[in-house]
Amino acid sequence: MSQQERAARTQTALIRSAAEMFDRHGYEKASLNDISSGAGVSRGALHFHFDSKAEVACAVESAAARTLRRVLDGVPSEEVCALQGLTDLTHRLVRLLLRDVVVRAGFLLSCEAGARVRTDLCQQWRTYVHGLVLRAAEEKTLAPGVSQEGVVNTVVGATVGFVVLSRADKQWLTARTVTGFWRVLLPSLADPLTMAGLEPAGTRLAHGDPRRTAP
Amino acid sequence: MSQQERAARTQTALIRSAAEMFDRHGYEKASLNDISSGAGVSRGALHFHFDSKAEVACAVESAAARTLRRVLDGVPSEEVCALQGLTDLTHRLVRLLLRDVVVRAGFLLSCEAGARVRTDLCQQWRTYVHGLVLRAAEEKTLAPGVSQEGVVNTVVGATVGFVVLSRADKQWLTARTVTGFWRVLLPSLADPLTMAGLEPAGTRLAHGDPRRTAP
Repeated sequence: MSQQERAARTQTALIRSAAEMFDRHGYEKASLNDISSGAGVSRGALHFHFDSKAEVACAVESAAARTLRRVLDGVPSEEVCALQGLTDLTHRLVRLLLRDVVVRAGFLLSCEAGARVRTDLCQQWRTYVHGLVLRAAEEKTLAPGVSQEGVVNTVVGATVGFVVLSRADKQWLTARTVTGFWRVLLPSLADPLTMAGLEPAGTRLAHGDPRRTAP
Repeated sequence: MSQQERAARTQTALIRSAAEMFDRHGYEKASLNDISSGAGVSRGALHFHFDSKAEVACAVESAAARTLRRVLDGVPSEEVCALQGLTDLTHRLVRLLLRDVVVRAGFLLSCEAGARVRTDLCQQWRTYVHGLVLRAAEEKTLAPGVSQEGVVNTVVGATVGFVVLSRADKQWLTARTVTGFWRVLLPSLADPLTMAGLEPAGTRLAHGDPRRTAP
């Protein structure tokens, strides 16, 4: 392994360890000592990569933003209408938040910190939601009179709320909660003809498994 | 002023100052020095009332919970149906969060901290929402097939999300956002006959001004 590969590997381990500490204890309580020892490296090695905890947090957010893009970019497939795409996208986000501590820590850092952060994952998430609501309007699958702004705010507000509430109770971040949310919301959003074909639990595309049918 | 009155007044000033620091800088960054000087008292006077920052935070949450009860208990008036009561209640919550820094800080502490807190304002808020959804089911004003659990989770998730997102952008915590949310949601929840009489912007009861008609 070259020196460059070793450095990249250490940086990845530090980002993961920092995400675990932020997720467990919150940003302020996480210490640089815990972050370096969690990654199995010295405090000096940490300082070779990062000047401060704020810089580690930025790296967590950047890594989370890259993963979010990689995972979500493929979801709103052209095979499904935009409202199904939006439903699938939130299922995909929740699955990603559950299994990837870097994305979860980055998302929470970004939502809770306000202006501190450089990479705003909440804003990035809002952009995905907004894009699909626009596509639904173009497809004319929204029910008459539905406000696009209202839909975007409702979906972004609820998903951010689910993530924050899941800190105290993991039930908030499950397929069951997301499916319940869409069962409640979709009848308002979709025109009746579209509604009949929508799956609040997400299509197999949402779950990333071509063999699996919607639960 | 008796010694007891002076002590009570100092305690109230400390709780308010702590709420302002938590609201502005977050729990971890707020210092006991800033809290005492914000209240215009010495560090010694603070320690006469509170042993630690965690204890100050508990006092903020308890004070917030008392205000929440006092303001919300009167809202779901018997004059309106439960779904209008729920709409009014969220408007009232948002107005309260906007103007009362102690409630805002207490609510955010409670939502973000997970298990740390003794008084769980998010849970208290959930209880109000749950009670009104139950009443709506008893009144048979919910649309057929609507899941009570789904409605409760959607309303609690979205309101918590709005509060958290408002840290970075105050637009999330406005009557406009709440009205937009209900315009999107109510057509799914309410049976069509009830829907015709509902006001997503809240009735005058929500805004606590008997002279004011719904905006």
